[in-house]
Amino acid sequence: MKLWLTTITAALSLNAAANELTLDTNLAYQLTESLTVEVGQRLAGSEADARAVTWAEQKFKQLGYDKVWTEPFTMQYWQRGSASLAVSAPFHQNLVVTALGGSIGTPFDGINAQVVMFESLEDLKQATQAQVKDKIVFINKSMGKDKLGTFYGSVVGARAQGAVEAAKLGAKAIIIRSVGTSINRFAHTGIMRYSEDVPRIPAAAISVPDAIQLDKMLSRQPELSLHLQMQNKLPGEVVSHNVIAEISGSQRPDEIVLISAHIDSWDEGTGALDDGAGVGIVMATGALLKQQGRPERTVRVVLFGNEEGGLVGARAYAAKHATNLENHVFASESDFGAGRIWRLDTGFGEKALAFGNTLQQKLAPLGVEPGDNTASGGPDVSVLKAQGVPVVSLQQDGTDYFDYHHTPNDTMDKIDPAAMRQNVEAWLITTREVANSKVDLRR
Amino acid sequence: MKLWLTTITAALSLNAAANELTLDTNLAYQLTESLTVEVGQRLAGSEADARAVTWAEQKFKQLGYDKVWTEPFTMQYWQRGSASLAVSAPFHQNLVVTALGGSIGTPFDGINAQVVMFESLEDLKQATQAQVKDKIVFINKSMGKDKLGTFYGSVVGARAQGAVEAAKLGAKAIIIRSVGTSINRFAHTGIMRYSEDVPRIPAAAISVPDAIQLDKMLSRQPELSLHLQMQNKLPGEVVSHNVIAEISGSQRPDEIVLISAHIDSWDEGTGALDDGAGVGIVMATGALLKQQGRPERTVRVVLFGNEEGGLVGARAYAAKHATNLENHVFASESDFGAGRIWRLDTGFGEKALAFGNTLQQKLAPLGVEPGDNTASGGPDVSVLKAQGVPVVSLQQDGTDYFDYHHTPNDTMDKIDPAAMRQNVEAWLITTREVANSKVDLRR
Repeated sequence: MKLWLTTITAALSLNAAANELTLDTNLAYQLTESLTVEVGQRLAGSEADARAVTWAEQKFKQLGYDKVWTEPFTMQYWQRGSASLAVSAPFHQNLVVTALGGSIGTPFDGINAQVVMFESLEDLKQATQAQVKDKIVFINKSMGKDKLGTFYGSVVGARAQGAVEAAKLGAKAIIIRSVGTSINRFAHTGIMRYSEDVPRIPAAAISVPDAIQLDKMLSRQPELSLHLQMQNKLPGEVVSHNVIAEISGSQRPDEIVLISAHIDSWDEGTGALDDGAGVGIVMATGALLKQQGRPERTVRVVLFGNEEGGLVGARAYAAKHATNLENHVFASESDFGAGRIWRLDTGFGEKALAFGNTLQQKLAPLGVEPGDNTASGGPDVSVLKAQGVPVVSLQQDGTDYFDYHHTPNDTMDKIDPAAMRQNVEAWLITTREVANSKVDLRR
Repeated sequence: MKLWLTTITAALSLNAAANELTLDTNLAYQLTESLTVEVGQRLAGSEADARAVTWAEQKFKQLGYDKVWTEPFTMQYWQRGSASLAVSAPFHQNLVVTALGGSIGTPFDGINAQVVMFESLEDLKQATQAQVKDKIVFINKSMGKDKLGTFYGSVVGARAQGAVEAAKLGAKAIIIRSVGTSINRFAHTGIMRYSEDVPRIPAAAISVPDAIQLDKMLSRQPELSLHLQMQNKLPGEVVSHNVIAEISGSQRPDEIVLISAHIDSWDEGTGALDDGAGVGIVMATGALLKQQGRPERTVRVVLFGNEEGGLVGARAYAAKHATNLENHVFASESDFGAGRIWRLDTGFGEKALAFGNTLQQKLAPLGVEPGDNTASGGPDVSVLKAQGVPVVSLQQDGTDYFDYHHTPNDTMDKIDPAAMRQNVEAWLITTREVANSKVDLRR
């Protein structure tokens, strides 16, 4: 053990000049800081994404993981260009706008059209072609706040499906009120979708203050025109990578306890909360676990690529490992910011619920309450859950998560180091309990 | 009185379709909303500035002011262009940057240079040419928060004078940590100065999170290069206007009680806090005062132009009215956001201090504490104070003012209508007490 620590220390000291790492529960914060400072944004498929993959490989090795490797997958690469949105006379003003991920651009000179506002995606679906044709649709649905992010589901549909629904009725473009909970003037990006049989139209989000402003303008002047200009690029297929590292199990090395986060981020912030924090937490958990004594089962840390584009890395992982997913005895992902963990949800078989209760009791001193047995495990891990892999969700307090999520304001200064330490403590307990037991968590 | 109210109502109803105004203390909020929604940003000298002047003239007339006029002045017009700032290898990232007002642009291809960080303007002044020559200077001074905005004075020097001090030592450009108190990722603009005998270099501000980020990068890699690109324009001399309106005094119409705000704003927000709120407050005060009974002295409301460029409208006003400034018995400005008024400071002669005490006692039910006798009266009004005009400062709670000041985030949703109403009540009491007395407030 002492020898091993010396080895780790020697490895870490290789990088001392760049950023010293210490093997305690603050390690997660240090790793997240290293990723956001030294790499920053890492849009899937970009050159920065490749740098993030290299960063992760190097850090895993420095941290003494037994095996470190990458697994390539192909993906459709989307690049943001310039974007601007202006209100025409009589209230000539620029609004803060951002392209939604995956959106096509406008013609070079932009699109000039009258705007038509709807309160929700559901209202848009009820509209007639006469209301919408040749206009720019504006969906102005606001979002509530809670610890679990419950309101996201009811709002994000406008972002994901709005372009298809608007285009069905002949709209020229769509803008949505940001899927976000802050009145700070940032537009929130995020993935959107097209449908093969519906024309593609440009899709963008405006900040919450700008949505309020546009609403007020429309109450004064219902016939208002907008000028939208966006220059996105869709260069086609590129290769990105999942980054994987293992602490080999001492007793049952073939049984895999998978903990994960996603390495990619949107491009306007530095991806500190989404999902630099998760990357730091799970990388630190594996390293600290080994420091405390090699686990009986193998602990595999997976940093999924291109989560933001639609769980692309996770699907590639599930496909590649399809034949040995039965060896995945457990999976979980940290991908909801850096707030304190306050609840344990499980996705276990009935006979493993007692194990879940015991686990929650071990987490209780950290303030973790019992939850339910309907955990998704996290966005990427939901793909594994669908294949029968048992999961938990270590629920973080996400009250403020959607203030920052997918904006330029998702930066390191928003993270509380003490909350990060609490996360690592909870992940360490959870991972150790599962990795050092023989429990079968499957349904 | 009843007839007069009918006239007002008729006038207001002319604009009912656009935005109904009601003659109560909520009028200030309605006016600020009207200005920010219907005009928005109004950079001095711009087409939007001219629209704001027209807006103000129309609103003064609708509100029943007895006289409404504009006074032209000439000014140097500055236009923002695109701006970008990127960190070069090994930490390639874009930082959030904004040009400081008045700054020249860079060459079209930008400036590539090593960055050198200083903790303050004072530290830069102590530096040697060897440290600074051919580099981009970065001043990383943080700003504290309090009700009075006390810390602004000790930080704003880097913005105003940094370019001159950096250029004296041969710097290629200067960037400063934003003069602001929020960790939201907005860069704060504001006016900067050149000196005739020192070369002009580009000057910009980065957001607080980006300043923290750059500091962390430099601690890892002291020899870091930046690429700064800005395309500002200085089109030269243009004409802007002060907008002036009066409620004529019933007894001593030649004695002028001047209340004021500034009509211009920086260009990235909608100038709600700076200084749309002040515009709403003083316009409402005059209208409500007349509704309550014509004052004995004349109440003159002045909306100064181009405050942001350096009190340009205020200086023009003082010059034009130089021969009758002795008729200005009082002046004050609302220009510190929309927080509640919590303190009364005066700038009176000794023999008028008793009047000041009485005034404070009348304001006390609103939560207004006694202050001192060193009031500036507000930025524009300080020019009149220098000419001997008595002033007060109705001090607003500015704790959060520098979170938003000079950023894209200065928007209407940051204003609390209840605090606006309290402001109007305090301004009504103050203006009425001075306008209905014969007190001589001069030193």
